[in-house]
Amino acid sequence: MPDSPLLAPLRDQHAALRKGKLSAIELAEAACEAYRTRGQHDNAYLTWQGEAALAFAQATDAVIAQGGDTGALMGMAVSIKDIYAVPGLPTYAGSSQRLPADWERPGPIVAALLAQLPSLMGKTHSVEFAFGGLGTNAHWGTPRNPWDSQVHRTPGGSSSGAGVSLIGGTASLALGTDTAGSVRIPASMTGVAGLKTTAGRWPTEQIVPLSSTLDTPGLLARRVDDLAFAFDALDGSLSPKPMRVPSTPSLADLTFGVPERFFWDDCSPGIAEAVQQAIRQLEAAGARIVSIELPDTDDAYELFQKGGVAAPELAAFLNTELPHMIEALDPNVAARIRAADDMPAWEYVRRRTLLDKLCQTAAKRLGQVDAVLTPTVAITPPTLESLAPEGAYAKANMKALRNTVMANFMGLCGLTLPVGRDATGMPVGLQLLAGPWQDARLLAIGQAIEAKLGSGVDILGEPPAP
Amino acid sequence: MPDSPLLAPLRDQHAALRKGKLSAIELAEAACEAYRTRGQHDNAYLTWQGEAALAFAQATDAVIAQGGDTGALMGMAVSIKDIYAVPGLPTYAGSSQRLPADWERPGPIVAALLAQLPSLMGKTHSVEFAFGGLGTNAHWGTPRNPWDSQVHRTPGGSSSGAGVSLIGGTASLALGTDTAGSVRIPASMTGVAGLKTTAGRWPTEQIVPLSSTLDTPGLLARRVDDLAFAFDALDGSLSPKPMRVPSTPSLADLTFGVPERFFWDDCSPGIAEAVQQAIRQLEAAGARIVSIELPDTDDAYELFQKGGVAAPELAAFLNTELPHMIEALDPNVAARIRAADDMPAWEYVRRRTLLDKLCQTAAKRLGQVDAVLTPTVAITPPTLESLAPEGAYAKANMKALRNTVMANFMGLCGLTLPVGRDATGMPVGLQLLAGPWQDARLLAIGQAIEAKLGSGVDILGEPPAP
Repeated sequence: MPDSPLLAPLRDQHAALRKGKLSAIELAEAACEAYRTRGQHDNAYLTWQGEAALAFAQATDAVIAQGGDTGALMGMAVSIKDIYAVPGLPTYAGSSQRLPADWERPGPIVAALLAQLPSLMGKTHSVEFAFGGLGTNAHWGTPRNPWDSQVHRTPGGSSSGAGVSLIGGTASLALGTDTAGSVRIPASMTGVAGLKTTAGRWPTEQIVPLSSTLDTPGLLARRVDDLAFAFDALDGSLSPKPMRVPSTPSLADLTFGVPERFFWDDCSPGIAEAVQQAIRQLEAAGARIVSIELPDTDDAYELFQKGGVAAPELAAFLNTELPHMIEALDPNVAARIRAADDMPAWEYVRRRTLLDKLCQTAAKRLGQVDAVLTPTVAITPPTLESLAPEGAYAKANMKALRNTVMANFMGLCGLTLPVGRDATGMPVGLQLLAGPWQDARLLAIGQAIEAKLGSGVDILGEPPAP
Repeated sequence: MPDSPLLAPLRDQHAALRKGKLSAIELAEAACEAYRTRGQHDNAYLTWQGEAALAFAQATDAVIAQGGDTGALMGMAVSIKDIYAVPGLPTYAGSSQRLPADWERPGPIVAALLAQLPSLMGKTHSVEFAFGGLGTNAHWGTPRNPWDSQVHRTPGGSSSGAGVSLIGGTASLALGTDTAGSVRIPASMTGVAGLKTTAGRWPTEQIVPLSSTLDTPGLLARRVDDLAFAFDALDGSLSPKPMRVPSTPSLADLTFGVPERFFWDDCSPGIAEAVQQAIRQLEAAGARIVSIELPDTDDAYELFQKGGVAAPELAAFLNTELPHMIEALDPNVAARIRAADDMPAWEYVRRRTLLDKLCQTAAKRLGQVDAVLTPTVAITPPTLESLAPEGAYAKANMKALRNTVMANFMGLCGLTLPVGRDATGMPVGLQLLAGPWQDARLLAIGQAIEAKLGSGVDILGEPPAP
């Protein structure tokens, strides 16, 4: 797997495909080979379709041979989270039952992706209805975090198979979604880069909804540079205000805000240290580091602890569209939905109003710096065993989401990239937050950081063999 | 009052002011004279500030004399509904208590209006927190409908003083708001024209909220042409997509859709007849009349009968911002808020989702015609006496709002203009509905209709003396 062409930067794959030095079939074969090696062990996929992808890649190569070019992602191996509707593949949204056929009709993102003729390797696992940050799933099993071959640790969620598919070598790009951290947490826990887009930038049609207010599509890849490449391939046809990633800025021209509190509280051993060291390296390279507090983080976290707005929004969807599935919910998901049963309508309205205010205040504050830097996740990926005792899941889940949910509640875009390992040897992510609609610029800033610190591939090397 | 310069079209007032043939002080004096004649009787105003307006008009005339021009509404007499924050005037929002001082800081609409130096005659009554369609108010008394000097009939609401201020001769333009019909109902019941803007077109900041989802600012005036004039004076600085009212189309080039059901059911005697006669006149003038049904009107009306979304939205505002005022609510308003106490949060989310769907479907359907024509209000303005028995208010209120709320639930803009009288001699309004953001074009269509049928001034003449 170290020589797999899948591991190369997307830009290099793109150039090699067009120069005839690489073929779509080679990429799909590399994915299949990786799947044979560790696919069962990692359990990233709900639906693996290696054979179909190989046949598709052959057709793509024929198009390339004829001089056809269907877009920047042509021929590349991608995985899609199980909550996106994809033609021909069942959607379970992490639940125990296949959703009605309408949930196999693609929405705008999948349509824009598939029109470029990537090789779709399969659909990756999700926490049931994307409602959880650790990546567990009682129905389908929890994907393994590839960085611990001894103990089954969580991969992060809810896009629980997305990061695992990348580290497992079966995809170069993974589609996920982020409602409270569900792209950034699995990216951080599996040592890859992840982009949470600004709410409203990319459409959510035909993505099974968790929170109609907070759901955002997002991307995971091995490098920030890969995210930037994929963003440029998709944003033009998806965003109401499309932008291209600008040229990489110099670190010496950037000002980063670092909060002194909240995000650092009570981190697992080694996490704060790894992030602080990364920040020192950026400062040494000329970046200006200033102290900044995100406004109202305590109010926001209190709102999150009370359940935010996702629980009633998911309940509305299930009660209306899929009432028969409520009985069969994963106990951890059912508990979170039940917590909203007694919430009166006016309290929900109050929360939405509070979110609007948080967004307005945060957008102003974020304008003072190029990005805010924090640890992405405060805790090391927990072992499944540690989550078994009564109450342990809820506590760990809340803490895993603490640092990421701020971006969702405040209407920001966010990025994570790996910067080291914690005391248990698990990957640690650096989170970058920027104001709304700054996605393209945030990626350019991330590229500047990655160019200085190295990508996850450089920092973490290969995962241990299964 | 028949000779009052206030009654002239705004365009004529505008020209005369600039030619020195009319002064702001003459307009303000005419308003004061009308107030002396029938102000107490009509009870349109919560706060009348004739003296201050006279002083202000004098200053405005000095500006005009120096060649200053602060905008199209300079020098004109206007009234503002009590739920708009206005500098220097208390805001009660129809309640029994003055709201905190922050509710006297103007929002964008009042700021845009006042910057043009109109003469602000006062603040007009509102149903308490704008939550009712008949215009009643237990704290301040219900303004009288000027068209019945014998019996106290409702003026329509919730902008209950707005239409009365126009017919009473104390203003040429009135600011109101419309959440379920609160501009169009009082306009229809008092025989003036009214515009309900598309939600999101004009900002609602510093207007005491009833429904954060459905509230829309609106205008009332004696003629559609006056509305078009005022719209052009304001839209440029208020709308994210400003437009000017286009030139008046020929009726022969217009296609009107007329629903065959729902809007006509169970109208008070003479209402359907007056509207049908107006439609026949338009057809005779060359307009194409086609049958069209607004989609999902039954679902929408069922949702409205269940309380829609306004009750929990108002409850959230009161519980959060003005909890001390809940105890003192008008019984009719308190009953409507209490009805939402048991609504769970997910049910509110379901309703919002349903509204989104209604908007999408309706926008497509409305694209088939230039406008949909219906009676504005199905019932004759009830007498106060008839509302006294248990349950009578709720029933009449629901029916008064039935035809107008469709525009709010479906995301449309709407217009009403007087077309005749019902069997009791009270004014009857013709409602025009058009798709979202069609406000400017709808006004032009209304001008074409008004040019054919005559304005309310032509059709209804003068109201009886008090």
